[in-house]
Amino acid sequence: MTGIIEERLAALGIALPEAREARVAKIRGANLAGRILYVSGQVPQWNGDIRFIGKVGADFTVAEGREAARLSALNVLAHARAALGGDLDRIEKVAKLRGYVNATEDLTMVAEVVNGASELMVEVFGEAGQHARTVAGVTVMPFGVAIEVEAEFLIRG
Amino acid sequence: MTGIIEERLAALGIALPEAREARVAKIRGANLAGRILYVSGQVPQWNGDIRFIGKVGADFTVAEGREAARLSALNVLAHARAALGGDLDRIEKVAKLRGYVNATEDLTMVAEVVNGASELMVEVFGEAGQHARTVAGVTVMPFGVAIEVEAEFLIRG
Amino acid sequence: MTGIIEERLAALGIALPEAREARVAKIRGANLAGRILYVSGQVPQWNGDIRFIGKVGADFTVAEGREAARLSALNVLAHARAALGGDLDRIEKVAKLRGYVNATEDLTMVAEVVNGASELMVEVFGEAGQHARTVAGVTVMPFGVAIEVEAEFLIRG
Repeated sequence: MTGIIEERLAALGIALPEAREARVAKIRGANLAGRILYVSGQVPQWNGDIRFIGKVGADFTVAEGREAARLSALNVLAHARAALGGDLDRIEKVAKLRGYVNATEDLTMVAEVVNGASELMVEVFGEAGQHARTVAGVTVMPFGVAIEVEAEFLIRG
Repeated sequence: MTGIIEERLAALGIALPEAREARVAKIRGANLAGRILYVSGQVPQWNGDIRFIGKVGADFTVAEGREAARLSALNVLAHARAALGGDLDRIEKVAKLRGYVNATEDLTMVAEVVNGASELMVEVFGEAGQHARTVAGVTVMPFGVAIEVEAEFLIRG
Repeated sequence: MTGIIEERLAALGIALPEAREARVAKIRGANLAGRILYVSGQVPQWNGDIRFIGKVGADFTVAEGREAARLSALNVLAHARAALGGDLDRIEKVAKLRGYVNATEDLTMVAEVVNGASELMVEVFGEAGQHARTVAGVTVMPFGVAIEVEAEFLIRG
């Protein structure tokens, strides 16, 4: 039997990357604490192939940054799925999403960049995908990527 | 019947701005997940009039930054109130507050800037307003504003 | 009777600093909200002696940054212990850790810096110390320190 969210992913033509293990220390890609599933900050990569290395506003346009945000968010979902034993239907709602954009000082459209991640959540989860959010422009990122996205999900009780 | 916190706001002469809807995507200003109310990062604005565009340390003094932090925190409260059906008395405590300051590299007094938000919470909620906090100086912010404040509240069970 | 985690700290030869009260506002070093203990962002200090003032990539190497991250994480544990009435055994798991590195724009090894904090958690708590994590490079920090580490712990029900 396929889950409701898996069916929606298929209907939308959205494939998730592998949930890649962290290369360092004993970090978890996602960690369930009570009913909150904390997902680690995800970079734009596909099965270990790291993409979008550079700064939005210099190396990438806002549109490219949105694409990088969406790719990071696909990795967020991949880690959530792995931590939930493959069952994304256990997610009751997307509680919070934070997007850290590796941006030039004059790039005030950082929220528009992170929309690439936010819109994916609403596509996949519908109303339950609407979330609280924080966006900040930062100096540098792991691997020098353009964006990192983290999330907290509420899991069904 | 007026709530206890509403009475305190009135007694302190503190008016809250409107809880403005996000302009983009399907972001929530505040989102209740279990007993945690996540409030989105708020910028210094009054009913859509965005203020304090610029960098603390260059365009604004620390004292001005504190004022911007307080204004951001008023928007945090406005969104919390809207998400709680108008009843701020449902807040048991302020759990966590994060302040991201758009600061020059030499502005080491970033914590003093965020105090403008922290002090508002203690004025309004008393001991229950004392919170865990994180402060960081960042590169750029949505709209280029000087500060963004987010919070997590514990709601009564 | 000594706690299990206290015994492990002793066996590892790890001493914790004092949980220093915040100098400003009415901030809590740690704040219990439901079963989540939120610990404020901690800087690398030992009993009030602030260390590692400067930027990783310019003033400090990655190895020095790791040391600063570990020292910040010792302060995280000190505040957790103080908030839990001295009993670190009440911690069920480390839910989330965030490391904000005061880094030059070209320092892409920011995750390696924060490993100094992550590894401490695994040393002390074993498997329960494995956590979700986010790392970002930022512009400036309180006191101009090289790193700030915050954490959220799940407390036993």
